[in-house]
Amino acid sequence: MSQAPSGDCLRPWEQYRKALPDDHPCAGHEKLLDDLSRCGRLFHRRGWSVGTSSNYSVVLSQNPVDLIVTASGLDKGRLNRHSFVRVNETGRPDPVGQPASSAETLLHVVLARRPEPVGCILHTHSIWSTLLSQRFFAEGGFWIEGYEMLKGFEGVRTHEHKMWIPVFDNTQDIPVLAAQVGELQNASPEKISHVFLIRRHGLYTWGKDVFAARRHVEIAEFLFECVGRQTRLA
Amino acid sequence: MSQAPSGDCLRPWEQYRKALPDDHPCAGHEKLLDDLSRCGRLFHRRGWSVGTSSNYSVVLSQNPVDLIVTASGLDKGRLNRHSFVRVNETGRPDPVGQPASSAETLLHVVLARRPEPVGCILHTHSIWSTLLSQRFFAEGGFWIEGYEMLKGFEGVRTHEHKMWIPVFDNTQDIPVLAAQVGELQNASPEKISHVFLIRRHGLYTWGKDVFAARRHVEIAEFLFECVGRQTRLA
Amino acid sequence: MSQAPSGDCLRPWEQYRKALPDDHPCAGHEKLLDDLSRCGRLFHRRGWSVGTSSNYSVVLSQNPVDLIVTASGLDKGRLNRHSFVRVNETGRPDPVGQPASSAETLLHVVLARRPEPVGCILHTHSIWSTLLSQRFFAEGGFWIEGYEMLKGFEGVRTHEHKMWIPVFDNTQDIPVLAAQVGELQNASPEKISHVFLIRRHGLYTWGKDVFAARRHVEIAEFLFECVGRQTRLA
Amino acid sequence: MSQAPSGDCLRPWEQYRKALPDDHPCAGHEKLLDDLSRCGRLFHRRGWSVGTSSNYSVVLSQNPVDLIVTASGLDKGRLNRHSFVRVNETGRPDPVGQPASSAETLLHVVLARRPEPVGCILHTHSIWSTLLSQRFFAEGGFWIEGYEMLKGFEGVRTHEHKMWIPVFDNTQDIPVLAAQVGELQNASPEKISHVFLIRRHGLYTWGKDVFAARRHVEIAEFLFECVGRQTRLA
Repeated sequence: MSQAPSGDCLRPWEQYRKALPDDHPCAGHEKLLDDLSRCGRLFHRRGWSVGTSSNYSVVLSQNPVDLIVTASGLDKGRLNRHSFVRVNETGRPDPVGQPASSAETLLHVVLARRPEPVGCILHTHSIWSTLLSQRFFAEGGFWIEGYEMLKGFEGVRTHEHKMWIPVFDNTQDIPVLAAQVGELQNASPEKISHVFLIRRHGLYTWGKDVFAARRHVEIAEFLFECVGRQTRLA
Repeated sequence: MSQAPSGDCLRPWEQYRKALPDDHPCAGHEKLLDDLSRCGRLFHRRGWSVGTSSNYSVVLSQNPVDLIVTASGLDKGRLNRHSFVRVNETGRPDPVGQPASSAETLLHVVLARRPEPVGCILHTHSIWSTLLSQRFFAEGGFWIEGYEMLKGFEGVRTHEHKMWIPVFDNTQDIPVLAAQVGELQNASPEKISHVFLIRRHGLYTWGKDVFAARRHVEIAEFLFECVGRQTRLA
Repeated sequence: MSQAPSGDCLRPWEQYRKALPDDHPCAGHEKLLDDLSRCGRLFHRRGWSVGTSSNYSVVLSQNPVDLIVTASGLDKGRLNRHSFVRVNETGRPDPVGQPASSAETLLHVVLARRPEPVGCILHTHSIWSTLLSQRFFAEGGFWIEGYEMLKGFEGVRTHEHKMWIPVFDNTQDIPVLAAQVGELQNASPEKISHVFLIRRHGLYTWGKDVFAARRHVEIAEFLFECVGRQTRLA
Repeated sequence: MSQAPSGDCLRPWEQYRKALPDDHPCAGHEKLLDDLSRCGRLFHRRGWSVGTSSNYSVVLSQNPVDLIVTASGLDKGRLNRHSFVRVNETGRPDPVGQPASSAETLLHVVLARRPEPVGCILHTHSIWSTLLSQRFFAEGGFWIEGYEMLKGFEGVRTHEHKMWIPVFDNTQDIPVLAAQVGELQNASPEKISHVFLIRRHGLYTWGKDVFAARRHVEIAEFLFECVGRQTRLA
């Protein structure tokens, strides 16, 4: 339509309207893809998903894992229904013939296997998460405690709550990192309850649906800035 | 309508257009609800109402208290005419059968009873209010003095004004907190003239109408950032 | 028109379209008023004109002074063609019967009398200008020197430029403040070349047209943040 | 069209639609110009291209150099298809009779001659790049190392990467500066791999296309803020 502002870089409205072809691996899940695309535009605007950083997924089944994750190398401020890849238990595109999925897809698979309902996994890169992940790497992480905003995390009912934010070392060997995350989930689930950081890299969080996971990103970023401004970084 | 960008997360234009059904408890007040919804989008964009934090109300009557407040657990960047609950003097939904109102509704009721005209009450959660509420909790609050911006608060006529910002301790026991606020209003109204903070939680302010209350949020946040950047936090 | 998003708080498109009635004191200048309104929306978004702070004018004639200035007490993020007052040499609405003009109208009149072409005067309130005006009040102002961005100020041709930013004390006695500004303009024009600050209050700048003045606001704010981040404030 | 919001300052949608006349020097490249215009709006919103700062180009041919660069003195938040100048190997408008090109066009020409594919060159002015260019000028530049975000730069495959950000002194003698940049590119290409700074002035980066260059701006700004917040500036 001529008056729709498709020329505007962050609002590709028109492609929202078209259903995926029936034989597309993500057909039938357009609503979820649109929700992830909106997250991407919001996070890009906030400065949490700049460049081609970040990746997002929706989990269609936790057991066996069946998820849809952002394709590799895209501008997260301009996702559309063709920006995603369907992936199976092994972290590989299924069916074959789709674009490459994010290099970190295996982390999504490991998080999708958590015991509680996980419908969405979001990975973002912010200034404050990067700074704190560096500052507290040597301690293995840091505590966040006493903030009302903690109640925005699923299942937290009072500000009198103490949450450990673990920091993993960064590596390009994603299977190793995924195994470390999986181990902590098994061994000390209370230390990886809602969010973790990778050193000088970024944040992972998840939720029962896209809204819950997005809420967790917003809350984590709020709390990180609070902690960061009370911490000597320079 | 196909060209209206209803897919955009922060501008649910279409639902604005539909009047509430005649038997809806908020029917006839659509304009006020739209004003609160716009506040929510603005505050979400500013980072003052992220996650599901914050709650907002419009006061239809101060005596007896009759108000409309945001329902519990909503994304404040996407409020629409169905996001609100009508509440009576006791802080409970009236008529029954509506969604749960915000957990902090009783604070709205106490503020609605103030002696001056109160048409709107806004509660937000910003980084700077959180930091200052922690920094000055031990002193019970802090003074803001000498800023031209103070004149934006209703009734303040000169920058040569000294305003006390009280900080209450946070608690999940809202009736207790509401009683403390009510007591300070009675005992020392000059110490709770336009705004107060709850420790590591957020800001409450109010005004004769939605615009006045929103203006008070903007001014308070401006002044908090000024104070915060002149204060050693780290 | 039903599909125009008039419900959105910062884009009152529809009122743009209607010419003012022929007998309105600002009739025929709608384009300039629209330009000022756009400045207001931009500055509100940037956090430089929150609450009801700030005032803006366009100068129709410098001698005798004939200008149009924002009416008092408005939200600068929502100006429209009915938000302005025409004012004469004395700083009073002319013709009578218009809304009250900004309390600081006399400062606009004094600036309109500057010797160079002045088509627009902008007064904004930012965090950084407030902080610097406080920090450097005792010295009477501060120098900005050596930044490429200085070249954005009208008439500056090299970064090897040194600009004095004078800071006046704040007062509610605007005629006194206007006289001080006028005196500095006469006595030491090189010390008040493009911009001045009022202590804990805000910035004044001007330009040959709305675009030049807006550019000066953006540049001044950029430079203030640079200076502020290199200055110990806490 | 009456409902298109052409009055909004940052979205001049309508002029997007019109192809340039056949005899315009930039005819046939409208898509690239639109991409640069969108970059300008994004960067203006981010605060990286305020006032009339910044200039952007697309490279049509690297040998001989044939490029299209922003005309001098424009608001980068409002570029349209008529905001550009076609320039040849000498940095001069070709054909003659076009508006003046940016004063820094020669830097674009030197960068267009780099050995790798260069399709777009972006120059921006941010707070953090200005501060770091001043802080690290005496050392000739600074290292960025160990950040995942580095992988967003073309050709970088791991966060275990060390990138030198050279800082050149500012000057109004652009041929001299262009020669210095050209010399460093020849003598030590590893020290000027993706981005350089000019002291108290801004950033230059480039990429194989507009998206790659914009990505490099976003990544560089992200990393500069990370470094800046860990550095004592005051």
